[in-house]
Amino acid sequence: MNAEILSVGTELLLGQTINTDAAYIAQELSGIGINLLYTTVVGDNPARLRGALDAAFSRSDLVITTGGLGPTEDDLTKETIAAAAGKKLVVDETAREMIEEYFSTRPWAASENQKKQALLPEGCVPFENHHGTAPGCAFETDGGKIVIMLPGPPSELVPMLKESAIPYLLKLENAIIFSRNIHVFGRGEGAVAQMISDYVNLENPTVATYAKNGEMFIRVTAKAATKEEAEKLCAPVVREIEEIVGDVVYTDRLDSLEELAVSLLAERKMTLATAESCTGGLLAKRLTDIPGASEVFETGVVSYANKTKEKLLGVRSITLERFGAVSSETAREMAEGVRKLAGSDLGIGITGIAGPGGGSPEKPVGLVYIALSDGSNIFVHRMTGGGRRAERTMIRTRAASQALDLVRRYLTGILNEPDDSEAKTGVFPVSEL
Amino acid sequence: MNAEILSVGTELLLGQTINTDAAYIAQELSGIGINLLYTTVVGDNPARLRGALDAAFSRSDLVITTGGLGPTEDDLTKETIAAAAGKKLVVDETAREMIEEYFSTRPWAASENQKKQALLPEGCVPFENHHGTAPGCAFETDGGKIVIMLPGPPSELVPMLKESAIPYLLKLENAIIFSRNIHVFGRGEGAVAQMISDYVNLENPTVATYAKNGEMFIRVTAKAATKEEAEKLCAPVVREIEEIVGDVVYTDRLDSLEELAVSLLAERKMTLATAESCTGGLLAKRLTDIPGASEVFETGVVSYANKTKEKLLGVRSITLERFGAVSSETAREMAEGVRKLAGSDLGIGITGIAGPGGGSPEKPVGLVYIALSDGSNIFVHRMTGGGRRAERTMIRTRAASQALDLVRRYLTGILNEPDDSEAKTGVFPVSEL
Repeated sequence: MNAEILSVGTELLLGQTINTDAAYIAQELSGIGINLLYTTVVGDNPARLRGALDAAFSRSDLVITTGGLGPTEDDLTKETIAAAAGKKLVVDETAREMIEEYFSTRPWAASENQKKQALLPEGCVPFENHHGTAPGCAFETDGGKIVIMLPGPPSELVPMLKESAIPYLLKLENAIIFSRNIHVFGRGEGAVAQMISDYVNLENPTVATYAKNGEMFIRVTAKAATKEEAEKLCAPVVREIEEIVGDVVYTDRLDSLEELAVSLLAERKMTLATAESCTGGLLAKRLTDIPGASEVFETGVVSYANKTKEKLLGVRSITLERFGAVSSETAREMAEGVRKLAGSDLGIGITGIAGPGGGSPEKPVGLVYIALSDGSNIFVHRMTGGGRRAERTMIRTRAASQALDLVRRYLTGILNEPDDSEAKTGVFPVSEL
Repeated sequence: MNAEILSVGTELLLGQTINTDAAYIAQELSGIGINLLYTTVVGDNPARLRGALDAAFSRSDLVITTGGLGPTEDDLTKETIAAAAGKKLVVDETAREMIEEYFSTRPWAASENQKKQALLPEGCVPFENHHGTAPGCAFETDGGKIVIMLPGPPSELVPMLKESAIPYLLKLENAIIFSRNIHVFGRGEGAVAQMISDYVNLENPTVATYAKNGEMFIRVTAKAATKEEAEKLCAPVVREIEEIVGDVVYTDRLDSLEELAVSLLAERKMTLATAESCTGGLLAKRLTDIPGASEVFETGVVSYANKTKEKLLGVRSITLERFGAVSSETAREMAEGVRKLAGSDLGIGITGIAGPGGGSPEKPVGLVYIALSDGSNIFVHRMTGGGRRAERTMIRTRAASQALDLVRRYLTGILNEPDDSEAKTGVFPVSEL
């Protein structure tokens, strides 16, 4: 089956929005063995959209449109798609109910425009939108082409694609797909791709690498008649790849370092407290992104100012004076300080320079110290990098990820960093504080 | 001048790479007043590329291609573009010298493939590549169409576009575009679009609405010969729209609520401390996303557990027992507690139920109390909504945004919520704590 994506939206042509939708759809299609041949972006212009649709129907079996479904969109987008496919727009009862239900829990009523969103091509399968009001849909044209219409905002498109569109396509093919994501922290996509280059030409399962939020993951995807069969095809490949890539692999079952950290802590019935300077709450935010984090995380302190580090965390003023706020010594006192303050099993301290200002030749932007205290010992990791290209968001994200990885390595017993007395990393007894 | 982008690269169709090049080019074209009508992605396939090129030449004045120029690329890409434009590929002497010069400073010699990069369409203007070996170029076809060929890697494309391609185009065009974004919090895109429906049909400036992270903004864009003229065209429309939409407009100069809050606090030389329960550090994280936040934000506490609320923030156990952790009373004590703890001018307390678990009929998922204390009075806002579809991330984002908006309204003197004794919102003297 050959597919193409038709993204509708003037904001894409003005460069206000990057077309992440297309990349996301492309990944998912590739995962189920559908060939994507073209992606086209057109503005909210009926004539040009019609031209693009006609071209798409003339050469592809599957046309996926994104955008043009929201309450403020010109109705013409939906009408043009329906017309090009030879369908009338009718009020879809299921869609109407979805919209009514959505507004039944809001303090305000649906606007006329929002009600119009229930208009869909006749005979289509509506897709529920759990994150907005515009339903999507799929239908077959008289010429035997499949059309899938999805909303533009990624927060709505991504779940709808996963929950509705991909299952719809798999049903057509009488197949299911099963993926396992092997998550890696601490090694780049390029390096890992080289390590597993023998695997990228496999056909079933397929193996592909992806970069995401300063991490990378390897997706192993198999297609089969049943989930069990597909899972069986994946298993040996996942095992081999994990062996090759080594202990920078942190999970193939969960979605993120924070999910893993919360789950490892919960298994061990241990609690964690955080003291953050340069990450400014990002680590606490990521831990509490995970439902159930309250079992393992009770206290976080954002000690953005030195006086907060002293007053709340008990960092000594002499430490701050002698070594500076960004130092292994301060990170250690923050980690143990917040652990004691919270009465938790583990404490994390993060201090660094996220930039863009505040760097110096000795302590450049990107330098971050991350310490983990268990009450007996403190483990210190030093992060550098990015150089003059270092970017605040990326430095903060990497530092929080590094802290979560430190928790993982501590809890799974693979924390064997060598002492480096010059960098002041390694293991320090709490008694020496 | 009407333009389109043709991106060549199988990696784009596999979703391994997001087409940021297209968004970047789109922005730059819009900045110099060139209308982008289409963006098309095709793989490294000569027949499909030729089809896309023929379609582009039939409808656009300017065709910008990205990708297919690197030393590892199939020569066919460049050949196909040249053939579609009716040009021969010849060794371009300037390009040959550029490549030789590039390699004169490297420890290795140019490969045969790299030397082939000097082959360019005859009569073109070559563009130097300061970050790689593949030169770009621009030329005019016999049919009077402009073709610009750029390399795919963003690190090469972005500087070449700025340094060579845009100056080349500026010689041909003579207009610029200026935009102002009117940011709104507290009213949805649909409702605002209806309020300003008279404006969306304007032609210069144009007016469009966008949703982003649970907020919305209105973009007003004008096209004129100079920036000053374009700005002058925008000004009255921005003013009128802001009048219509009212005080839910929070800025037309900055990018986000957090940027505005940090800037308002800095102007007034005031400091803020945060005590977060359900948002778990997200508010602190958003404040510290802004460089320079350290001037106004010194202390944040994530009091995920009740004992942390008591111990660190001084929330009374009787308050927690009688009213519960999610209550107006607890939010108030958190706000004033963290303000005193930090010794700051303002304190924010947030407590609520982000879900998916933890809801009850009296206190459903999505219920959040947000309090702001200035040491004399405490202002309480109650947020509800989302119902059973309420989603953790969205609830947390909205709650943090609501807190930032409360800071804005307090600092700009438009905090005039009526008391609602049943919901326990409104203004409460600190002396009554």
